Amino acid sequence: MTNDMKSAALQCREAAQAVAALSSQAKHDLLIAMAERIEANLSSILEANALDMRNAGERGIAPAMLDRLRLDADRVAGITRGLREVAGLADPVGQVTHRDTRPNGIVVERVRVPLGVIAMIYEARPNVTVDAAALCLKAGNGVILRGGSEAINSNRALDNLLKQCLSEAGVPAAALILVEDLRREAMVELLQLNDIIDLAIPRGGEGLIRFVAEHARVPVIKHYKGVCHLFVDKAANLDLALDLLIDGKASRPSACNALETLLVHADVAATFLPRAAAALAARNVEMRGCERTRSILADIPAATDEDFAAEYLDLIIAIRVVDDLDAALTHIRQYSSDHTEVIVTEDEQAAERFVAALRSAVVMVNASSRFSDGGELGLGAEIGISTTRLHSYGPMGIEALTIERYVLHGSGQVRHPRFSEDASGQP
Amino acid sequence: MTNDMKSAALQCREAAQAVAALSSQAKHDLLIAMAERIEANLSSILEANALDMRNAGERGIAPAMLDRLRLDADRVAGITRGLREVAGLADPVGQVTHRDTRPNGIVVERVRVPLGVIAMIYEARPNVTVDAAALCLKAGNGVILRGGSEAINSNRALDNLLKQCLSEAGVPAAALILVEDLRREAMVELLQLNDIIDLAIPRGGEGLIRFVAEHARVPVIKHYKGVCHLFVDKAANLDLALDLLIDGKASRPSACNALETLLVHADVAATFLPRAAAALAARNVEMRGCERTRSILADIPAATDEDFAAEYLDLIIAIRVVDDLDAALTHIRQYSSDHTEVIVTEDEQAAERFVAALRSAVVMVNASSRFSDGGELGLGAEIGISTTRLHSYGPMGIEALTIERYVLHGSGQVRHPRFSEDASGQP
Repeated sequence: MTNDMKSAALQCREAAQAVAALSSQAKHDLLIAMAERIEANLSSILEANALDMRNAGERGIAPAMLDRLRLDADRVAGITRGLREVAGLADPVGQVTHRDTRPNGIVVERVRVPLGVIAMIYEARPNVTVDAAALCLKAGNGVILRGGSEAINSNRALDNLLKQCLSEAGVPAAALILVEDLRREAMVELLQLNDIIDLAIPRGGEGLIRFVAEHARVPVIKHYKGVCHLFVDKAANLDLALDLLIDGKASRPSACNALETLLVHADVAATFLPRAAAALAARNVEMRGCERTRSILADIPAATDEDFAAEYLDLIIAIRVVDDLDAALTHIRQYSSDHTEVIVTEDEQAAERFVAALRSAVVMVNASSRFSDGGELGLGAEIGISTTRLHSYGPMGIEALTIERYVLHGSGQVRHPRFSEDASGQP
Repeated sequence: MTNDMKSAALQCREAAQAVAALSSQAKHDLLIAMAERIEANLSSILEANALDMRNAGERGIAPAMLDRLRLDADRVAGITRGLREVAGLADPVGQVTHRDTRPNGIVVERVRVPLGVIAMIYEARPNVTVDAAALCLKAGNGVILRGGSEAINSNRALDNLLKQCLSEAGVPAAALILVEDLRREAMVELLQLNDIIDLAIPRGGEGLIRFVAEHARVPVIKHYKGVCHLFVDKAANLDLALDLLIDGKASRPSACNALETLLVHADVAATFLPRAAAALAARNVEMRGCERTRSILADIPAATDEDFAAEYLDLIIAIRVVDDLDAALTHIRQYSSDHTEVIVTEDEQAAERFVAALRSAVVMVNASSRFSDGGELGLGAEIGISTTRLHSYGPMGIEALTIERYVLHGSGQVRHPRFSEDASGQP
């Protein structure tokens, strides 16, 4: 796709009908064939990636981005493992989610159908090219991939292999479109095609996501950031609280489900905070605290309002001592990104109140925020995460790439029987 | 709400938390109280409406719009009957739609929560003011109502009564906002509040809906029009086909689920079309046909491409003879508004192919398109209809005003157990 974004998208929509018509077995076999094709072409993929790495290196790209861009045999094996996992997922298309016989005898079913055409907008991770294509195709959709320019050679190599498999399965290759015109203007053009594209899912930094949300006329499912909170209640098991704190903050600080703020009930602050500080320090986590925190942990800097609003994505944590559960709820409501919140408590009533009072996408009692993940929640694989309360809220699996519609089976029922009879001249 | 749209919307969001926290019983009682309050104030409502009618009459409003604007005792009784029906609906909030224990012992639930704040944008029907408020409140949401300027006095009278009931139920009256600044600029301002309003639902003519879609930064669920098709297959029971045709076209032509196009299989055209024409003519339905139709019904005018794309909302129907099921599918795919399509056939395979090949929101076998309605489908009451394959597709009931989120109950599970143990210094 170089010049004409709209005609390519129209081709994708046309081809998506062929994807929607594929049997579950055919979709399974297609994804397995894709995994095998990638494995058989490892060296050409790595060559393309080496070219991307060289170009990126010459342009002085940041090390973190270089790491995301890099492929090796292990990472490609991860990609094909993902393909096989998605191949093995239950097919959501055609699932009957409700069935009801109305008093007039009409059988009303709600049946899952694909969304249509999904546009993925992402940055320099070549694995997203394959992951997103696999999930969208498995759910019966066409897919338009707009990856970062740094990964264009890797993406093109992967896209070519996937398209070969589509063609061999009798599906027009246009069911999978890799956008090669990487100008921002072209992305805006893509995001305006609201009669063609059914959903755009941006994945990446907040800047990219805000750009997409700003310019889209197509529906967008997104999350800006994950400012996840851990509240240690006065009735908490403090050993357990410590485990959840360390796992949540330090096991993968760059993840959106990592903890950013620790709230501690005043009654247990003097006991818990010194233990927490020792464990965090042992993991090189920098702490920033409120006044009351600093009266216990004297040597840490003050946390500002910006700290409590921050998604650090790094080994830093903001800490606040609160009077009670209500104060914790007030804090979370103010700073929440609607992503994931955790309470540690043995008090069932406190847990219930915490859950009921917060409307974040994922609310947990006595479990690590790091479980806020499609795979961990049993969705099989994750296409993204939504902090928007529409269509899908929280981690999104394959089901979120479909929609329920109505199928009715009747035997001639009319809504105004006497009216019809009069009209057709029958008594 | 006159000057500061944003601060009113923020108050509504705040008040929506109180609505979300109401028990099922409290919401039931609130809606019953609203019905009683409206009944007790019938004369003041009719006075306000008479003022609207007088103003509209002086401005030379079209008779159809005057009819939509008009209230009388019967229509108000319909409004309060609707309130009692919504009061009696099952409360979707708090419903656990899935429950699953993960291998690590965490219990994962999906639980329905309100969307938050819903903006309804509609035209001159005062009944929508109450219907929409009832459904949104029952689903635990705050609601912002922006009705047509013609109905402002009626809407204000109804809104005052509803707000009294909110206050008496201990809910801030700001949970229900009636927009009184009816300039288009103010509507645009409202539609831009994407951090405050969770969903906008426009209801009215295509012009209003396109205006909302054009200017909204908040998510919008909409349908532009209903170009509903009836396909009479060669294996159709023709008596039944005639009933569905007359009910679909003539029982309420102004409804979006009325038929606009009749497709007839060539094998039965010579038998069916003369009967259809007689029955349609008896109901004063004007026919416009393709060449092959006109070779059978000589005296009707030719149908143009515009006819096949039209939502007449009137006693007019476009007719086309098609070679076979495939040709019918091709026609429907080209002209469909993704609303409702019907096949009449005794051939199960043909019915299956019709259902599978079309992705409209509602697809029917041997039933009238007029059943494409929330009440008829068992949803209880309808807040609108969606022809967008996102969040909700087809008639939308109260459930469509909620979203599922995740609630997890654990007992200290961490994602990287060894990692935590190392960190906290335990073996």
